[in-house]
Amino acid sequence: MDGSQLATALWDKRELIFLPLGGAGEIGMNLNLYGYGGKWLMVDLGVTFGDDRVPGIDVVMPDPTFIADRRRDLVGLVLTHAHEDHLGAVQHLWQRLKCPIWATPFTATVLARKLREVGMEREVPVTVLPMSGRATIGPFEIELVTLTHSIPEPNAVAIRTPVGTVIHTGDWKFDSDPLIGPVADEERLREIGREGVLAVIGDSTNVFREGEAGSESEVRDSLCDLFGDYRQRIAVACFASNIARLETIAVAAAENGRRTALVGRSLRNMVDAAKANGYLTDIEFLDEEHVGYLPREEVCLICTGSQGEPRAALSRIASDTHPHVTLEEDDVVIFSSRIIPGNEKAIGRLQDQLARAGIDIVTERDHFVHVSGHPARDELARLYSHLQPRMVVPVHGEHRHLVEHSKLALACQVPFAPVVENGQVLRLGPGNPVIIDTVPNGRLALDGNRLVPMDGSLIKDRQRVAENGVAVCTLVLSAKGVLLADPAIHLPGLVETDSDAEATVLAAAVRAAIEGLSADRRRDDDIVIDTGRLALRRALKSVLGLRPHLEVGLVRI
Amino acid sequence: MDGSQLATALWDKRELIFLPLGGAGEIGMNLNLYGYGGKWLMVDLGVTFGDDRVPGIDVVMPDPTFIADRRRDLVGLVLTHAHEDHLGAVQHLWQRLKCPIWATPFTATVLARKLREVGMEREVPVTVLPMSGRATIGPFEIELVTLTHSIPEPNAVAIRTPVGTVIHTGDWKFDSDPLIGPVADEERLREIGREGVLAVIGDSTNVFREGEAGSESEVRDSLCDLFGDYRQRIAVACFASNIARLETIAVAAAENGRRTALVGRSLRNMVDAAKANGYLTDIEFLDEEHVGYLPREEVCLICTGSQGEPRAALSRIASDTHPHVTLEEDDVVIFSSRIIPGNEKAIGRLQDQLARAGIDIVTERDHFVHVSGHPARDELARLYSHLQPRMVVPVHGEHRHLVEHSKLALACQVPFAPVVENGQVLRLGPGNPVIIDTVPNGRLALDGNRLVPMDGSLIKDRQRVAENGVAVCTLVLSAKGVLLADPAIHLPGLVETDSDAEATVLAAAVRAAIEGLSADRRRDDDIVIDTGRLALRRALKSVLGLRPHLEVGLVRI
Repeated sequence: MDGSQLATALWDKRELIFLPLGGAGEIGMNLNLYGYGGKWLMVDLGVTFGDDRVPGIDVVMPDPTFIADRRRDLVGLVLTHAHEDHLGAVQHLWQRLKCPIWATPFTATVLARKLREVGMEREVPVTVLPMSGRATIGPFEIELVTLTHSIPEPNAVAIRTPVGTVIHTGDWKFDSDPLIGPVADEERLREIGREGVLAVIGDSTNVFREGEAGSESEVRDSLCDLFGDYRQRIAVACFASNIARLETIAVAAAENGRRTALVGRSLRNMVDAAKANGYLTDIEFLDEEHVGYLPREEVCLICTGSQGEPRAALSRIASDTHPHVTLEEDDVVIFSSRIIPGNEKAIGRLQDQLARAGIDIVTERDHFVHVSGHPARDELARLYSHLQPRMVVPVHGEHRHLVEHSKLALACQVPFAPVVENGQVLRLGPGNPVIIDTVPNGRLALDGNRLVPMDGSLIKDRQRVAENGVAVCTLVLSAKGVLLADPAIHLPGLVETDSDAEATVLAAAVRAAIEGLSADRRRDDDIVIDTGRLALRRALKSVLGLRPHLEVGLVRI
Repeated sequence: MDGSQLATALWDKRELIFLPLGGAGEIGMNLNLYGYGGKWLMVDLGVTFGDDRVPGIDVVMPDPTFIADRRRDLVGLVLTHAHEDHLGAVQHLWQRLKCPIWATPFTATVLARKLREVGMEREVPVTVLPMSGRATIGPFEIELVTLTHSIPEPNAVAIRTPVGTVIHTGDWKFDSDPLIGPVADEERLREIGREGVLAVIGDSTNVFREGEAGSESEVRDSLCDLFGDYRQRIAVACFASNIARLETIAVAAAENGRRTALVGRSLRNMVDAAKANGYLTDIEFLDEEHVGYLPREEVCLICTGSQGEPRAALSRIASDTHPHVTLEEDDVVIFSSRIIPGNEKAIGRLQDQLARAGIDIVTERDHFVHVSGHPARDELARLYSHLQPRMVVPVHGEHRHLVEHSKLALACQVPFAPVVENGQVLRLGPGNPVIIDTVPNGRLALDGNRLVPMDGSLIKDRQRVAENGVAVCTLVLSAKGVLLADPAIHLPGLVETDSDAEATVLAAAVRAAIEGLSADRRRDDDIVIDTGRLALRRALKSVLGLRPHLEVGLVRI
């Protein structure tokens, strides 16, 4: 019986528990669990981007082992919205959970496309809930409350239990004119507030920003003006899922006598998903194949690749390797998006490549071309004034965001604002909130077709290999201990591929060390391998000044 | 005869030439060449940080081959100031150049320390020039003009030739109260302007910033106030070479009843270099070993590691592994420095770790704790008004900075502002400026004890290995083509070290493929290796879903 099993046995079934396995202490890979009556409800199941310290890992997600071990008690998964950090792990982890899923139409469409890609669309039971819909999931009564964000159909989830009502906000803001979809249902929030709210579990992303996030409609006005300043091609880079922004760009283009084309697969996918759900229905986007026929002054391109991703449309256009689209001197690229931390250098390289070709660049710094989808401080305060919760539990933030959000909530006269991190078991009620336990938690990396633990030896070796390089040496000896051939040494990425000089010097050093052993010792595999390793390490240090990861193998014939 | 040799023969010795081999189109690794009368003068020889796309490479510098091939005509190297991106490559490249060096006292002291570390201090001839000093170096008459920056003794270099006078600015700003050293010698700049200036080759770093950089003295006032807000330990992270900032921190500490300790080796080195040259003489810093004895409210620490470097003092303090210094709840860390692009994630991790321990964090965003050392637009305009140059050649910037700087100079009524990149040969005069040639140029990475080309196959392999991992397979066959042992397969960082399962499956696939060859074909080395490689590639794809870099070797016995 491990610690967590012990712990579960100890938790009182009459207690309402909040347990984040992802997203508390980081921005990304949300996985939230609510426990009551021996049952668990999951809200969101997302991925995050790879860690810059581990090259080659692009997708990381929470380790679901704790809840996978209890999947018979997992009554369902509710998705708040369709961003990758909220639903991107479903296709990778559902086989371990096998629970029913609830989502609104647009989110369900996006999920279905992803499940189809991995051949799971018939297997996963998804219930489509309308906006403001309700469902009973085990002991949890859930109700969606419409909010606004940078994607269609963002919802808070009201979770009613005998202990009290929780509002799980998902990602949100109060946009007075979101352009796509309705405004946030603040009247309903106030009603729920009057009924009494035990806890708000909520978005901390922009807690360091004063004021309000601003409205999508302000971006539209600004882009309409900005487009008027340019005479040649206009390209706009933005996130594919920001459907209102896509509409905004198309409207600004039309007002300036331009037609809008989508450049990049994820844009076409997202527009298809939007149209299938009644959004963007009166906007017609050109295909990227057809923009070449238009005069430059009539072109507006929406491109993927705002983060400098090397394989996305904008990078390919910048390096002039895109099959259909070119940009030239005096064209302009507008970055209508924020910089995701860690992408600064890639974006800088992309912008410099564009500048080299004489292309003008407009970013958030130069002009009002983007608003955030997350609540700034005044919006957080307004939400807490509507809901009057007994406590706020900050999530969707790094630790410093959670701490600041906690301080803000307390300043808003919310009685409790506990800070929890992934794996901590918070009792929301009855009684005052208290962390009663910690369960195993971690991160899994998608590596090829496998999920591997981010804190395991494989990833540590991968980091060592990436950082220091690797040297592999195979020794071939007879059973009697005669070295039958020169040590075969491979130094991938440590020496030029067409140069044998270094490998020859190293092999001679290893050979000398092995042959320096007595015949007896040469019959001992461990001694031979250790001797080879030591000789190789010393030779690498003195010949090349390097300390790579070493692997030495022995073949006995 | 390669292109560049041809080119040199063609350049007219009566022309004055500017040729950057580093620093034009990037911020970092400055290497500027001026050519006249068949001779070359070098200004600055710096390094840059590693590329985030190549793990394990920390130091990169310009490839000096062009000038190393002509080193008999290289009359000298003048260092404008002691920052790494201006002098950090001397210790790595001087052996290829063997030219005399000129520098002011503080810069010479910093250089001497670096040369001593590599045992070259007796070999390299360094002439110490006083501030405002002059020298004749081959056909070039040089004069230093005092400027201000974020390190002591920053100089512009006035280079007089029969064709005209060039002002090479180095890094600079106009700080009206720099605290360490004099203000910029604007009177001398105006005099030189009246004599007539052909070209300014100048700093573009902050060309996108309106107004002025601001003065170090404003930071001092602000830090004095800020320190008053804290009751427990104060730690300040800043660049070790910013001697005025170190003084500022010590003064602010003293005014608030605190004593200041230096934590981190590079800080102690820089303070030693400063004191050896008459700076910081009336300030006494504590050693880090002794701060443990002071009450928390009397402590001020200056720490290395403002960029989140994992081995620097602040990261070790944050992870509570520093041998002498600890921080606790309610202490504060002030980041009195800018974020170098690319370090955002590392700094974010460091700050989150500090926040987890309950330590307060203050950055540029929260409070006025830093000023830049580079000129904003008004300062650039002021310089050009003093000098009235015929042309401005922007350097020390990425391409988009150079383009913007060129536009600004033209707007200041400077007649010419050509944009050049590394390797382009710009004729400054006589006649209008024109790019007359391009010479080979590139970047070298310090890798172990070697310098390897950044655009060579070694670095490409290194990237592939880092990104995709590596698999090495050694085949042992008899001369007649009999496979004598199972293929020895190493998968460092691709499988758990204690698991043989995957390697066994892969080895079986490779064995089957080799044994499927006819005896004839098994005697052909190339066929055996290609067959093994193909089988391994397929098996890796199907078993693990991976496409690593492959190396397959064959041992014949």
